[in-house]
Amino acid sequence: MSDNEFEKSPLNTVKRLPKRGYYDKETIFGILDEHFICHLGWEVDGQPFLIPTAYGRKGDTLYVHGSSKSRMLSALTDGRPLCMVVTIVDGLVLARSAFHHSMNYRSAIIYGHAHELEGEEKMEALRIVSEQILAGRWDEVRLPSEIELKATTVLAIDIDSASAKIRTGPPSDDDADYDLPVWAGVLPAHLAFDQPIVDPAMKHNLPISLSVKSRFKSED
Amino acid sequence: MSDNEFEKSPLNTVKRLPKRGYYDKETIFGILDEHFICHLGWEVDGQPFLIPTAYGRKGDTLYVHGSSKSRMLSALTDGRPLCMVVTIVDGLVLARSAFHHSMNYRSAIIYGHAHELEGEEKMEALRIVSEQILAGRWDEVRLPSEIELKATTVLAIDIDSASAKIRTGPPSDDDADYDLPVWAGVLPAHLAFDQPIVDPAMKHNLPISLSVKSRFKSED
Repeated sequence: MSDNEFEKSPLNTVKRLPKRGYYDKETIFGILDEHFICHLGWEVDGQPFLIPTAYGRKGDTLYVHGSSKSRMLSALTDGRPLCMVVTIVDGLVLARSAFHHSMNYRSAIIYGHAHELEGEEKMEALRIVSEQILAGRWDEVRLPSEIELKATTVLAIDIDSASAKIRTGPPSDDDADYDLPVWAGVLPAHLAFDQPIVDPAMKHNLPISLSVKSRFKSED
Repeated sequence: MSDNEFEKSPLNTVKRLPKRGYYDKETIFGILDEHFICHLGWEVDGQPFLIPTAYGRKGDTLYVHGSSKSRMLSALTDGRPLCMVVTIVDGLVLARSAFHHSMNYRSAIIYGHAHELEGEEKMEALRIVSEQILAGRWDEVRLPSEIELKATTVLAIDIDSASAKIRTGPPSDDDADYDLPVWAGVLPAHLAFDQPIVDPAMKHNLPISLSVKSRFKSED
C-alpha cells in the first residue's frame, strides 16, 4: 500500500457500483473515526462468526478488546484472516420506483489479521478504544488494575487491504418515472445521543462529566 | 427448535456473560423487527466476508436482496453457512472505572443458510424487505418490472440457530469504586430520523408521503 491509499486487489475492489468505491486512507479512516462500533467477522472450519464490538484507531492500526475468555479474541489471536466493517446509515433514499430505493450510507471494510498486545502497548490500545467511544473519559475514571488487565485481551488489527463505499444525495429514478405523482426524497438518519441518565447509585452530587456533556451536545 | 425458542447448541450459546443471553423467538424477533440493516458474514476458502445490507423478516424466515451481479448473493445461493447480526446501540454505560465501562445494546445473531427465491415468493420477499425499511412505502411507488426483477437476486435465510444478547441499566462498578468522585450513568443513544429532504427533481408539488411522515414522527 502507498502512504495515502490502499492498493486495489480482488479482495477490496468494489465491484457493484464501482463509482461508490474509495481506496484512500483519508476517506476510509474518516469513516472509522466517526463511529465506535464495528462488526468483526472470521471463520472457523468453514463456519462464519460475526460480532459487534467497540474499536479504536490510531494511524494504520485498529484495536479491539474483550474478555480473555472471549471465543472471538482467542480465535483471532492466531492471525487468521478477519473482516471488519463500520457502517454509518445517513438516510433512506425514497425513489418513485421500488427498484431505485436505496440508502445513503458510508461504510468502511477492512481485511486484515490480528495480534495480541501486552504491557504498555496494551494499556495504550485500551486508551485508544476508550477515547474513540467517548473522548476525554479515560482521564476522568479509575484506570485498569493489573488484575483487570489480565482479564482483558487486546488485539491490534493490521490492515492488509481496505475500501470504503459511500452513497449520498437524492434518489436516481428512471426517466419515465419522474412524471409519477409520488413524493420522492431522502429521510436523513443519524445516531443521536439523548439526555444523560445519572446512576441511581451515585454517592456524590456531581455535575455531568465534561466528556459526557460534550458528546451529548455535539451530537444532538 | 421448539415453536417459541431456539435450542441451545455450541454455536448459539452465549458463553461470555451468559445472563445476557436469550433464546426465545419473541426476544430475538423483537430485535430483528426494530431495525432494517444487518451485517451478513460468510466465508470463501477461509477468507471471511462481511457486508451491511437491508433485510426483512416474516415468520421464521429472513430475506435479503441485491443485484444479481453481487458476489455476496452468488456466494450464498449455494447454501453455505452464514451468520447474520442485527445490532441496536441503546447507550454508553459510563462507570467509575475504565474496566466497567460498557454499552447498553440489543443484538440478535442468526446462524443459517440461504436459498434463492423466484416468482411470487420473490416479489413477496421484496415487499417484506421494503416494508421493514419503511412501512407503507410499497403501496406508494411503482412496483418492480420483469426486467428489474431479473436484475435482482432475492435470498430467503432459513434460521438454523439463533440467540440474542442484551444489556440494559446503569453501570455496575466494584464496591470500593462507588466512593470515587466520578460522574457515572448512561448516555442513551438511538437512531434518529430527521426532517425529510424533498428530491430537487420533483415535478409535482406533493405532500410528504404518509409512510415517510409516520417514520419521521414516530422515531424522533
